[in-house]
Amino acid sequence: MSLVHRDKKHLWHPLTQHKTASPPLGIVKAEGALLFDEEGRSYIDGIASWYTCMFGHGNKKIMDAMTKQMKELDFTMFSGFTHRPAVELSEKLLEILPENQSKIFFNDNGSTAVEAAIKMALQYYFNKGEKRDTLIAFEDGFHGDTFGAMSASGLSSYNGPFEDFLLKVERIPVPTDDTIESVISQLGGILKNNACAAFVFEPLVQGAAGMKFHSAEGLNALIGCCHQHEVLCIADEIMTGFGKTGRHFACDYLTQKPDIFCLSKALTAGMFPLSITSTTEAVFNAFLSNQVTKGFFHAHTYSAHPIGCAAAIAAIDLLTSEEIGQGIRRIASSHKMFQKRIETHQKIKEVRTIGVILALDLDVEMDRYGSLRDELYQLFLDRGVILRPLGNTVYVLPPYVIQEQELSFIYNSIEEVLEQI
Amino acid sequence: MSLVHRDKKHLWHPLTQHKTASPPLGIVKAEGALLFDEEGRSYIDGIASWYTCMFGHGNKKIMDAMTKQMKELDFTMFSGFTHRPAVELSEKLLEILPENQSKIFFNDNGSTAVEAAIKMALQYYFNKGEKRDTLIAFEDGFHGDTFGAMSASGLSSYNGPFEDFLLKVERIPVPTDDTIESVISQLGGILKNNACAAFVFEPLVQGAAGMKFHSAEGLNALIGCCHQHEVLCIADEIMTGFGKTGRHFACDYLTQKPDIFCLSKALTAGMFPLSITSTTEAVFNAFLSNQVTKGFFHAHTYSAHPIGCAAAIAAIDLLTSEEIGQGIRRIASSHKMFQKRIETHQKIKEVRTIGVILALDLDVEMDRYGSLRDELYQLFLDRGVILRPLGNTVYVLPPYVIQEQELSFIYNSIEEVLEQI
Repeated sequence: MSLVHRDKKHLWHPLTQHKTASPPLGIVKAEGALLFDEEGRSYIDGIASWYTCMFGHGNKKIMDAMTKQMKELDFTMFSGFTHRPAVELSEKLLEILPENQSKIFFNDNGSTAVEAAIKMALQYYFNKGEKRDTLIAFEDGFHGDTFGAMSASGLSSYNGPFEDFLLKVERIPVPTDDTIESVISQLGGILKNNACAAFVFEPLVQGAAGMKFHSAEGLNALIGCCHQHEVLCIADEIMTGFGKTGRHFACDYLTQKPDIFCLSKALTAGMFPLSITSTTEAVFNAFLSNQVTKGFFHAHTYSAHPIGCAAAIAAIDLLTSEEIGQGIRRIASSHKMFQKRIETHQKIKEVRTIGVILALDLDVEMDRYGSLRDELYQLFLDRGVILRPLGNTVYVLPPYVIQEQELSFIYNSIEEVLEQI
Repeated sequence: MSLVHRDKKHLWHPLTQHKTASPPLGIVKAEGALLFDEEGRSYIDGIASWYTCMFGHGNKKIMDAMTKQMKELDFTMFSGFTHRPAVELSEKLLEILPENQSKIFFNDNGSTAVEAAIKMALQYYFNKGEKRDTLIAFEDGFHGDTFGAMSASGLSSYNGPFEDFLLKVERIPVPTDDTIESVISQLGGILKNNACAAFVFEPLVQGAAGMKFHSAEGLNALIGCCHQHEVLCIADEIMTGFGKTGRHFACDYLTQKPDIFCLSKALTAGMFPLSITSTTEAVFNAFLSNQVTKGFFHAHTYSAHPIGCAAAIAAIDLLTSEEIGQGIRRIASSHKMFQKRIETHQKIKEVRTIGVILALDLDVEMDRYGSLRDELYQLFLDRGVILRPLGNTVYVLPPYVIQEQELSFIYNSIEEVLEQI
């Protein structure tokens, strides 16, 4: 029996309406920028499997690091214990994070990195004897699917049934060059009228919202306002981190530095669920006390899993290598050339690119999970290209090791699909 | 520089008050039931690294399965895609889960398995057009550290700063042989006066509360009451699952079957962060609709990670092997003999055991995170034994492959430590 038939009996897939969805594709092999299905067809992984496998599927350096680590020390608790991979990862990561970052806390995925960040911010004020109960977040932000992370998210397609159960959040639009002043004034009102603990945001690029960009100047101003009110700023770099924007982190484009970073996805190149909530010495110090309970009593079993840390160390070595740096620059420059080629196309409303991210808004009306979007997805799949349109936005975010001809094939497929819709 | 010195600079450990805590132990190697520190000392892992490494550290069968899988297919999204390890794991797992279980949903750790379960229950009623906003949970239950999971947890040492931000939960005490009637009546009142969506519980053994046991007969009655009110029952078997109680699942001791199971920890033998929320056909069917948004729009990037699924398949093969079955029975019988030997000791208040779990309540007053508890922890560590007392409860939950003399060494250490306090 095929994988797809066996799958149907027992598996409940995420983000899937099983009554109407097409059957899933049974994948049996992956290599570099390619995935292979059970019938031997190959697909170019145009979004690096949810922006994780940036160094290519089956990357030997990462696999070797994981295999070596599991033979040495597979797992130990991280409460009362430590180990080389966690120590080494913290050292390597802090070399590339903004200078104000000082302490590394471990979780297992993006949602839990955001949960830890929100809890740190709330307890930071609790420990100081101040009650602050409100978060600030962007409209259409996405930060994960657990209750705390959902609260920060503003995409209603995800939160619908749970809206009554979320934390208190005040929302602002992202700042564009034209709207900076009005957004700053809106934020000012929120800061004045609420006891705000933290401002949570995806810096410069909102992923799930449809790879929407906003202004670095505007974000600098917002962070500045928050800091004036002693509100902690949490940068969710789960999607943007580790080279996607052309710099190690999107916040490297900012002059105002966030207090807390959430990192995952490319952190382990998709090979292992691991996430990090990093922060400043000042935030960490607010948890030091002779009262035990002022500590951060938050833990996941697998915190700082040695095999995951080993994968992340290898991934950072790759990220900072000349070879990968060249790959990122090559993709960024190809994206720019394709942008010029396509931006005047009559079915294109806007094309934007930063680093290895390329997003095209089609000039058609489309529901986020509507049938036109599904048709578009299928048209790419038929051509052997995996792209997952978000509403009417088609985006490309390929592995840094994608070959020139594979990238051209994606661009050509986009042009072909534009002719078919 | 030693690991411990380097650790201090950058790492923020879970469940740790860094101002007063002893430095962590730097672990460099693990094998079978042993961990080794950077000075070459060995420690018997008396709690299987938070109840995960049940088949021993560095288990070759599991490592081989993971290594083989990563070379074949390291990672692919699980939305729109499927793969052999997920399919095979779902088939193997449903063979050993209670018969009413039918669908498998993937997450990355215990907290997120519970979040998914709670969201399933809330949306189950939302989809039916019924608003149910209340959870029922045991006093002193522990279900994880994200906001949803924290809500279900009743241990205030974890929730202190966050109590204002949690879901609505009504609590009942666990039923003992003496209290069944009164607990049932209390539950009846709650069911009558609230719109209850789900009852969340650790079946038979509450782990973090101090390995407290309760009555199977009582739990059967409570599940029965909930089912009469069409309230979904969620069994959190994250700690108890996969053989710990002497059966595959603690719920195998029950005649009333829960609707939803949360599984993690021993699922992958601690080698990979993976968790599962399984459920019945009836719950799954409530999400089927021509309206896309009635689906379960919940996802973690790493859902059904192929390498994690491969580890879990190998772990279930081990669990159902004769060799491991013998190990479990051997440990259970050793625990019973030790129970007889120690239960009349003047410093012991109660000894209880089920499967490979042995818990001893000491007849001393002790804070959960107090200095006496820390002293006890250190006394075991000095003897080369890792046990993490919970308040005045010392418990043993060793890997199924622990050797007879290692287990005896733990028992003897407990007797020695009792003489010292």
